[in-house]
Amino acid sequence: MSSNDVLEKLAKLRSKVRDIGSKSDGGSSFTTITAAAAATRASEESKARSKISEMSAEVVDSNPYSRLMALKRMGIVKDYEKIREKTLIVVGVGGVGSVVAEMLTRCAVGKLILFDYDKVELANMNRLFYQPHQSGLSKVEAARDTLLHINPDVEIEVHNMNITTMENFKIFVNRIQHGNLDNGKVDLVLSCVDNFEARMTVNTACNEENQIWIESGVSENAVSGHIQYIEPGKTACFSCLPPLIVASNIDEKTLKKDGVCAASLPTTMAVVAGFLVQNALKYLLNFGTVTNYLGYNALADFFPNEEIRPNPNCDDRFCRQRQNEYQERLANEPPKEESVEEEQPIIHEDNDWGIELCDDNSEEIPEETSTVAGKGLKFAYDAPSTTSLQQQTNGETTSKINAADISSLMAQLKSL
Amino acid sequence: MSSNDVLEKLAKLRSKVRDIGSKSDGGSSFTTITAAAAATRASEESKARSKISEMSAEVVDSNPYSRLMALKRMGIVKDYEKIREKTLIVVGVGGVGSVVAEMLTRCAVGKLILFDYDKVELANMNRLFYQPHQSGLSKVEAARDTLLHINPDVEIEVHNMNITTMENFKIFVNRIQHGNLDNGKVDLVLSCVDNFEARMTVNTACNEENQIWIESGVSENAVSGHIQYIEPGKTACFSCLPPLIVASNIDEKTLKKDGVCAASLPTTMAVVAGFLVQNALKYLLNFGTVTNYLGYNALADFFPNEEIRPNPNCDDRFCRQRQNEYQERLANEPPKEESVEEEQPIIHEDNDWGIELCDDNSEEIPEETSTVAGKGLKFAYDAPSTTSLQQQTNGETTSKINAADISSLMAQLKSL
Repeated sequence: MSSNDVLEKLAKLRSKVRDIGSKSDGGSSFTTITAAAAATRASEESKARSKISEMSAEVVDSNPYSRLMALKRMGIVKDYEKIREKTLIVVGVGGVGSVVAEMLTRCAVGKLILFDYDKVELANMNRLFYQPHQSGLSKVEAARDTLLHINPDVEIEVHNMNITTMENFKIFVNRIQHGNLDNGKVDLVLSCVDNFEARMTVNTACNEENQIWIESGVSENAVSGHIQYIEPGKTACFSCLPPLIVASNIDEKTLKKDGVCAASLPTTMAVVAGFLVQNALKYLLNFGTVTNYLGYNALADFFPNEEIRPNPNCDDRFCRQRQNEYQERLANEPPKEESVEEEQPIIHEDNDWGIELCDDNSEEIPEETSTVAGKGLKFAYDAPSTTSLQQQTNGETTSKINAADISSLMAQLKSL
Repeated sequence: MSSNDVLEKLAKLRSKVRDIGSKSDGGSSFTTITAAAAATRASEESKARSKISEMSAEVVDSNPYSRLMALKRMGIVKDYEKIREKTLIVVGVGGVGSVVAEMLTRCAVGKLILFDYDKVELANMNRLFYQPHQSGLSKVEAARDTLLHINPDVEIEVHNMNITTMENFKIFVNRIQHGNLDNGKVDLVLSCVDNFEARMTVNTACNEENQIWIESGVSENAVSGHIQYIEPGKTACFSCLPPLIVASNIDEKTLKKDGVCAASLPTTMAVVAGFLVQNALKYLLNFGTVTNYLGYNALADFFPNEEIRPNPNCDDRFCRQRQNEYQERLANEPPKEESVEEEQPIIHEDNDWGIELCDDNSEEIPEETSTVAGKGLKFAYDAPSTTSLQQQTNGETTSKINAADISSLMAQLKSL
């Protein structure tokens, strides 16, 4: 039987199965639903939409981009279609990263490069995105299938690997340098990993490559999270100071052996994913204000919003080099040029809030607002011994948590 | 050919298609991916998990509830398994409501009742949840199929109808009264609709039935949103005062005729859905603090958090009746009983923030914090002429927007 015969036969059978499905009474019994659902899914690929060469603003039901292009008419984004020139790397496609990848796909970015080395498990089903039938598949491959089905216009490149090994780190750096649609540098790296080592690896690569990235994390008790925009030399890097909130700084694998696991909620993870992609869009398409550090405490609906300057004594030599370069740039430029004009917060007529932005995110950060924990925040552990940092944080509430294993983790990372 | 023959043949063909798929080199060409994806999807139902009678905290990859049950060990929730006794109505399963329904399904609520009368369109693909192959299906039925596939333990009841007609309003009220797993009152109603009329309908029903609900909305420029917890008699209802942020108060259908549509982003909608379900979980499982009004301004990452008291001159007579009942209850109870003990904010050892809650959400709301717009907020339009309300808001920033068509809309609603 040729593959054409198979496909023809399959098409006929599909239609028969659809008939069986449509004869059901539409009741809510599980069996009926599953049969109908199976028929629907069996014919998915025939209904999956074809590629679209140009984004259109036309308001018709069949245009998947009408609501995005409307951002132009609403005065929010100048050139929304520029999104199709952008390439992002998403490191980690678990509870946060998979939702981030789906949002970016639906927003029609040009290209996504996904890194992860985990497999989908039923234990992941309390978060959005993966479905039970994908159990056992590698996360990046399951994600690629779903994302291409949702939007075939996005180019998806996947790497089923752990970036913290020497060999894979090189591949990761290569993709930062040459991953975009023209084999050039990517536009943004989003970190959605769940452990310290992987965060430090992303940090090392981005300092080295002078690559802007946004870090994210969710706490092990599932009810808080954060994002942190990191522009090497301008804002604190992940090594500059203890993370304000370490996401899950416990090793999932060790924990599982002891019959213990971190809690997680689809709500917290989707909120963090939403903040992450929203700020990525603001950065890529030049609207609103990109937040440096944004936290989310779900128990109290409290959202710390901070500006964090780099630590001049950062352990990462590339970070210190980027800081020098940034200071030189500042010294050589007229003050107004530090930020592009469009970066000014746009106050629209239909700004429902009538608010004005506060000074936290203004362009010129005074030298004295530095690496400190803001109101209501505390560091997850102490900074590496940097006298000047300690002087700067003097008078702020800091405390020692989980300081024990940091040096060993750093040693591990440096031995790569 | 009997249906058994068909199924047998289909199984064989599936395996052939899988073979074709697996022979592909794993490259990123769209055709290859689609074939593999089709094979995967065709066999979905065989891999969909079976029902689970009791939620377990066991940490194994095959347990879809281990990360939720871990909330108990983390000290966040006392009895997470109580979630399976809860029934929620979700009105509107579009960009916000579909994600809300998916989150609740993954969180393992007992029963979901969905109302919507729209069909899935390609124009919805810029938001999470629906996929292109579902175009043309009714939203509630497409949602039910996906939700049952994700978690067959959740009971899903769907109503493909517009609740604003007289006949359907009765069905909606009946489901509030008798929709739960024991044919009793539901636990919570979540409003995820995109128009004023539907919100007023939910408000009318919930005031009448003394039903707690949470309202949500996203602005037509896609970059702000809100949720508002409404406990009849205790907090402001939707009629008490102008909505602080009206979501899309334009008629999508009229607009589309003119070649114009509201903008939307998956980010903003997922953040609002996350806030909505997070506060629903806090309310249902009695942890943290349920926020009365929480806003989200995406351009500035600004999150107004307000307490809004009911308007004694509210147009809705059931709202006024609930206010009297609430005041009587307060007068007859010792002050401490106004809230249950567990409603106190829980400060955990692993509260990463070390924050204390501010007074906004404390149990006894002083009589003077009333129906007012807080710092940085303005009303979308003026309140119905209520002298006392205007006195209360005296000195606050309010302004007139879209006041024109409110009375006609209210008249329409009342004529139902």
